[in-house]
Amino acid sequence: MHERRWRDKLGLFFVEGEDLVDAALDGGFEAVDVLVAGEDVEPALLAAVSTLGHPPRVIGVFRRRESSATAQTTLALWRVSDPGNVGTLLRSADAFGAGVMLSEGCADPFGPKALRAAMGSTFRVPLLDFELRNAVALVAEGGEPLQAVELERYSTFVLGSERDGLPGDLLSRCDLQATIPTSRVESLNVAMVGTIVLYERSRRSGV
Amino acid sequence: MHERRWRDKLGLFFVEGEDLVDAALDGGFEAVDVLVAGEDVEPALLAAVSTLGHPPRVIGVFRRRESSATAQTTLALWRVSDPGNVGTLLRSADAFGAGVMLSEGCADPFGPKALRAAMGSTFRVPLLDFELRNAVALVAEGGEPLQAVELERYSTFVLGSERDGLPGDLLSRCDLQATIPTSRVESLNVAMVGTIVLYERSRRSGV
Repeated sequence: MHERRWRDKLGLFFVEGEDLVDAALDGGFEAVDVLVAGEDVEPALLAAVSTLGHPPRVIGVFRRRESSATAQTTLALWRVSDPGNVGTLLRSADAFGAGVMLSEGCADPFGPKALRAAMGSTFRVPLLDFELRNAVALVAEGGEPLQAVELERYSTFVLGSERDGLPGDLLSRCDLQATIPTSRVESLNVAMVGTIVLYERSRRSGV
Repeated sequence: MHERRWRDKLGLFFVEGEDLVDAALDGGFEAVDVLVAGEDVEPALLAAVSTLGHPPRVIGVFRRRESSATAQTTLALWRVSDPGNVGTLLRSADAFGAGVMLSEGCADPFGPKALRAAMGSTFRVPLLDFELRNAVALVAEGGEPLQAVELERYSTFVLGSERDGLPGDLLSRCDLQATIPTSRVESLNVAMVGTIVLYERSRRSGV
């Protein structure tokens, strides 16, 4: 289950540590197994399968499920391949009450690194199919300054891959391109761009 | 040089890969040694000392230096211990033209992980002594909403440790406490909080 293809094949994922196990349970995910060191298994076994430097006291195995939730505002991630970035964006989406769409080629949000970076948000944020409607593409340069965009008119904010940004055909399917003004081009990483967009959107709606 | 105490003792640090070596040279850091695989050394040697999964073609050893730069706006990091967060905050500071202060107990900005996350910004951002003047403390709850703060009046934005936030005595030395409104308390990580603050500050000054 450390590899995505096995997680996909089995329809399962695992989380390490009490906080994440609790978050998955609170999110209504079905626990297939919860292993507590010293009770259900030898601590050495948990340490052996753990991905952490300090092995956890608890590991939970959960069943994946289809998300039926919806969201007014959504981040659409296009081939965001770093699991830390996917996890951080899920955490920010949770903070600002947004959903997340993941294209093919994104890091698995249920992989260990993404789960860790998301700090439990994975189990609360609506995960939606990738679909561009009322979409603003965030581009490193040349877009309308974010401050000038009527964000209230749009519901989907599209973030490109760390390496290549957004391809032309995908840009053409967006209604608008926007750029966060900075003193250097490409100076913000994708997780920061997504977080700023959600902050700005939430600020405007006066939440 | 993989350990901070040796980097401190020697007054040196090393960077991996051409982009970071170039950024250090562009930043005016003195190269003590630049090792190119297949030219100066056996590739296997670089691979052995590298901290990367894919070993780099170039490793540069540089001398640390005192920073004499100043900045109008500064992030003050209090015991931010995760090197990825320190690197990300340096990257955001670079994007928005800010400086960074690091307290004791922060991750070393010249360690390999922080250097990688900063993507070269370490060599451009003013690194200043930790000093609280015109300071706003960012707190997870109970502060003035960031939108309502007259950010132009303040120059230092103080971020606490990932685990414990800011201690009381340090809060009392700040002029104000501010909170980014979110739908959940403690839902943003410290790097995202710092990035939002710098964005908001820069947005207000109409840059």
